[in-house]
Amino acid sequence: MSNSETFSKSNLNRDLFAISLDASLKTSLQAQLLEALRNLISASPNLVGARLPASRALASELSISRTTVQAVYDQMISEGYLVTRQGSGTYVASEITHLSQPQPSPRPAGPAIEPWRPFQTGLPDQSLLPNRQWARHLERAWRAPAPGLLARPDPLGWYPLREAIADHLAAWRHLPCDPGQVVITSGAREAFEVIFHGLLGSGKQIAIEDPCWPKLHTILADTGNTGNPIRIDHDGLDAARLPAGIDATIVTPSRHYPTGVSLPMPRRVLLMDWARQTGAMVIEDDYDSEFRYRGQPLPSLSGLDGLTNTIYLGSFSKLVSPALRIGYLVVPKRLLPNTRSYLDRVGPRASLIPQPALATFMDSGEFAMHLRRMRRIYARRQSHLLDALAPVSDLLNLHADSSGMHLCVLPRAPLTDRLSDIEISKRAEGIGLRISALSAQCALPEKMQGLLLGYAAFDEDTLSEAAVQLIAILRSER
Amino acid sequence: MSNSETFSKSNLNRDLFAISLDASLKTSLQAQLLEALRNLISASPNLVGARLPASRALASELSISRTTVQAVYDQMISEGYLVTRQGSGTYVASEITHLSQPQPSPRPAGPAIEPWRPFQTGLPDQSLLPNRQWARHLERAWRAPAPGLLARPDPLGWYPLREAIADHLAAWRHLPCDPGQVVITSGAREAFEVIFHGLLGSGKQIAIEDPCWPKLHTILADTGNTGNPIRIDHDGLDAARLPAGIDATIVTPSRHYPTGVSLPMPRRVLLMDWARQTGAMVIEDDYDSEFRYRGQPLPSLSGLDGLTNTIYLGSFSKLVSPALRIGYLVVPKRLLPNTRSYLDRVGPRASLIPQPALATFMDSGEFAMHLRRMRRIYARRQSHLLDALAPVSDLLNLHADSSGMHLCVLPRAPLTDRLSDIEISKRAEGIGLRISALSAQCALPEKMQGLLLGYAAFDEDTLSEAAVQLIAILRSER
Repeated sequence: MSNSETFSKSNLNRDLFAISLDASLKTSLQAQLLEALRNLISASPNLVGARLPASRALASELSISRTTVQAVYDQMISEGYLVTRQGSGTYVASEITHLSQPQPSPRPAGPAIEPWRPFQTGLPDQSLLPNRQWARHLERAWRAPAPGLLARPDPLGWYPLREAIADHLAAWRHLPCDPGQVVITSGAREAFEVIFHGLLGSGKQIAIEDPCWPKLHTILADTGNTGNPIRIDHDGLDAARLPAGIDATIVTPSRHYPTGVSLPMPRRVLLMDWARQTGAMVIEDDYDSEFRYRGQPLPSLSGLDGLTNTIYLGSFSKLVSPALRIGYLVVPKRLLPNTRSYLDRVGPRASLIPQPALATFMDSGEFAMHLRRMRRIYARRQSHLLDALAPVSDLLNLHADSSGMHLCVLPRAPLTDRLSDIEISKRAEGIGLRISALSAQCALPEKMQGLLLGYAAFDEDTLSEAAVQLIAILRSER
Repeated sequence: MSNSETFSKSNLNRDLFAISLDASLKTSLQAQLLEALRNLISASPNLVGARLPASRALASELSISRTTVQAVYDQMISEGYLVTRQGSGTYVASEITHLSQPQPSPRPAGPAIEPWRPFQTGLPDQSLLPNRQWARHLERAWRAPAPGLLARPDPLGWYPLREAIADHLAAWRHLPCDPGQVVITSGAREAFEVIFHGLLGSGKQIAIEDPCWPKLHTILADTGNTGNPIRIDHDGLDAARLPAGIDATIVTPSRHYPTGVSLPMPRRVLLMDWARQTGAMVIEDDYDSEFRYRGQPLPSLSGLDGLTNTIYLGSFSKLVSPALRIGYLVVPKRLLPNTRSYLDRVGPRASLIPQPALATFMDSGEFAMHLRRMRRIYARRQSHLLDALAPVSDLLNLHADSSGMHLCVLPRAPLTDRLSDIEISKRAEGIGLRISALSAQCALPEKMQGLLLGYAAFDEDTLSEAAVQLIAILRSER
């Protein structure tokens, strides 16, 4: 059936083709078809005017004789359900409303589209995706699928994508690994589920940075573990402050979430020493470090450690689009058997549909090109936002950030005396801005005050406008 | 970059474009680029002969001057890293192997493709997918994505897909529902997680059919619930046998898994009465009832109940492909707020990539066409398998099944005296057949004996051959 046919026609054909006839019943096939077609037309006023398939086509679809179909059509024409038009076929008659059952209430409209609001964090600018290229990769991957795509799926993911990720990690993150160590997941939450349900077990003491990604508390609670928040300082997490009895530490060394500080080399060495001495694991969440604007990126912690006591987490949500729902983890080789047996048991969750397309998108170099383009655009947006906020440099500590997709802006004393970050966040929400308060992402007492201003997903005009609105809030007397 | 360029070139460009230069460092940009390019070429023997981007292009990518790039190229030509070819550009020289670091060990080959083996159950014939149509739907959906696809995603799924599913359920399963009640999941496991973590809670007493889908035991254990197996009879589950204190019953009324029996109307009424009287929920797992070969399908239990005390589960794994990882549940309206707050908390897991394509695939009528085509083919395969097994009708109870994708064949006395279903399954495994033993899917004592023979995914020649092998096992003396 071609796409150019009307929607009613498609529905009619779909419904006709769904009819099952049973030759073993006492009722004749003809009577069965007659009743089914009558019911269908009576129940669907929107079929008025729809064209029926040719008797030969319907007969073939239902595996019955054409004579039977023609007899049913003739009967229904005589009953007024159907009409014929000279030389053009059989249609549902327009005068059958008296036959209709009560019309179903009209379907409610779908939910309104909820746009992203400035200064939402953690979001790429999806309007800049290379859509035509991406769509072509999808089309090519599935037009004549590779045999492996239709065979028994590897619960660890599509192997060519795992290869492409290993190449990417070696080139961008100084993390050499075997593609077999890369495990595709449906996102960060599933990655943590694999770690906690499949590798470490529950009931564990997990050290987390404070502040941290708020969902981490939910994930730890849902997987039956206890989070131990450790306040970070201007150099990130200090392993010397980890209490005894910790089973694993979750850390964002490239760029601490949400403050943006990078863990310096001595702190990295200290953390790796701690892991070796205690036998604990370090889980490196490397969520957006590809967007680095100045200076050489530090190698990933997992690369430094040679994936011995580390598990590495990455995602395409920020590099490409959250629509993919594709993340991954890279596990030490000794943990692979447990990873596999866990995933064999619960089954893969990540769709295979995007995986071969993402693999060829990466192999073609278009992915790296996209990252570099986004890096230039995001760098410009960050400078633009800093310029736009310059009028309130007496109230906010404004510094360029060498990486990332949002600024974590700390307030100066004249502001902190008047307005908490929570209060600013609330007022911003009231006028259509989404500003996360830093204190809301702290679990420990003496919460840090700050504003998280995502800039990556918003063009410069939008950022200018939103900055004006934010300035008005900060300057307001009450 | 076009796909026609060589792989080495792509890798070289990707790595070059990943270089970050820092104008604030003491080292000049030229020295930084020189060092980066030297390291890159030394470390990658497979780059020999690769063409470098034109100096203008690289300068633009790295946001530095063309003079700087040309100076680096010149320096490296003089050092022997690069060569120029008249009028055709700059290439990595072929005599630089002495510069190379130890060559990395060659990447291991990917895992071998594991084909599906006869008589694997629960599997559609994916070689018959309308690939070109499906690929076109994917390409169209993402070439110029609908604005809603890039906006804040609804954790319940892409609305047009939920509409298409509601249309399908009304037409094929006599289950009228509002698209808002349809919740897209990444498969049956996530659907049960939504039910148990989001709606019913854990620590519940859940009645399940015995035998049943083996993963159900895992899912109940993982979600912290207790399964209460109830032995089914030739009419399926008898609600009169449900013990007191049951919070929910999971049932496969259209076609019991794995025996294939259909729950007759009086039993359905009894089950619905039980739910109303006890306040318990009935979870209807309707996993493949679209493949009905004879007779009118009974309306879904959820349709009969008007989605009051029922939750309906469906999936596209068997109708289209397990590669999609798209399933869904349909929940009573009063449970929608809890469903939404659970999914807001844990986030969606189903990829958005296949969802708009699946929606247009369904709306175009091509999905229904595919189902009808598969129905005809699977019906033929079932008859073919029954014919092929006719020589052992003294050992097996062979009956045509009015629906489904596998036969559940019960052994006759001469066979049961000699060989258990487990023993047959083991011997079959040894010669490359996958035959599940019915007794392995029973939890209660006095396990039922039987063989599950999936036929849907295998063509007639394969089924003939496999039947001959199975007959040999059944006739063998030891």
